[in-house]
Amino acid sequence: MTRGKASEESTARRRPGRRPGSADTRGEILAAARKVFAEKGFDKATVRGIAREAKVDPALVHHYFDTKEGMFAAAMQLPITPEIVVPVLVAGPREEIGERLVRMILEVTAEPETREPMVALIRSAMTNDRAVVMFREFISNALLFQVADRLRVPHLRIEAAFAQMFGVIMGRYVIKLEPLASAGHDELVELLAPTIQRYFTE
Amino acid sequence: MTRGKASEESTARRRPGRRPGSADTRGEILAAARKVFAEKGFDKATVRGIAREAKVDPALVHHYFDTKEGMFAAAMQLPITPEIVVPVLVAGPREEIGERLVRMILEVTAEPETREPMVALIRSAMTNDRAVVMFREFISNALLFQVADRLRVPHLRIEAAFAQMFGVIMGRYVIKLEPLASAGHDELVELLAPTIQRYFTE
Repeated sequence: MTRGKASEESTARRRPGRRPGSADTRGEILAAARKVFAEKGFDKATVRGIAREAKVDPALVHHYFDTKEGMFAAAMQLPITPEIVVPVLVAGPREEIGERLVRMILEVTAEPETREPMVALIRSAMTNDRAVVMFREFISNALLFQVADRLRVPHLRIEAAFAQMFGVIMGRYVIKLEPLASAGHDELVELLAPTIQRYFTE
Repeated sequence: MTRGKASEESTARRRPGRRPGSADTRGEILAAARKVFAEKGFDKATVRGIAREAKVDPALVHHYFDTKEGMFAAAMQLPITPEIVVPVLVAGPREEIGERLVRMILEVTAEPETREPMVALIRSAMTNDRAVVMFREFISNALLFQVADRLRVPHLRIEAAFAQMFGVIMGRYVIKLEPLASAGHDELVELLAPTIQRYFTE
């Protein structure tokens, strides 16, 4: 695996004043992170343990990645992190949150280079016990609960919203159900936004 | 793989006046069916081709299974077929269809012996190109479109409903997200039924 676009942009954006340092060091940290996350799951993996695996100082890991969530997203090449999702959701009227969320997920998953690492992670979660623990912990603790608590939505309701969009992305890109797979973003936003809106507001 | 409870009951229910015949013959037909469906997909598989694979007369296949859909469900040990779903959906007021459908899916998937063959098929569909073709064709042509056309619901809307319930079942039993995995049926019906109802009526 190589470094993902999303993670490169994220590092570049968040540390504009610093030199990005050796690509090899960053790549070695990510390789160590993938190994430690796979062995320990998301919750039990630590920055210290990943630094030890990569044979670097923990401070160097922090130089490249602000948070464990960010490191996980970069290691798995995931385009969706709380840092990206939360600002989109809180920017704008609460009564349009369903529309904003559905459109963002459709746009992010429309690009093969951002979609494929997510689908690969889901595929391994479906068939591998360790991968499912890692996926579950990241999805709930690092993504859904962060968004839910920030917006004061009960956890069960945000998981219902996740289930709807998970099913749509799987139906569209893995099962390839028609007409779902070929439907345009506007049509899907019109169909799905009221569902997501209801989970976030009722 | 062995014969499923659901398929035994289904055959027993639908042919009350006939002897079920040799268990081996029926088992051999199902083994042949699994092989032919896996090779050809659901749409291209024929009763004639399955009979040839099982080295029996096509009439004998028809004796055990009325339809290709029923044979697929029995071969894959699936508890959900149009013959089971449609009567539940059309029996009762249209404005309570969301509640009936959500409750039926929760009840059917609550039993490990009916859930596990479905989850196994989904797992193989996620990771195997032939299995995904078979799953897609069965889900759309044999299940969703039958229900949609019977109830005059556009195909895209029934696929949105499928996506919601697919995500809930995956979240509950494969990813095991909490609190979704432990939530009771009544709570989930209250949360999800309005979503499904809207796809079926609006």
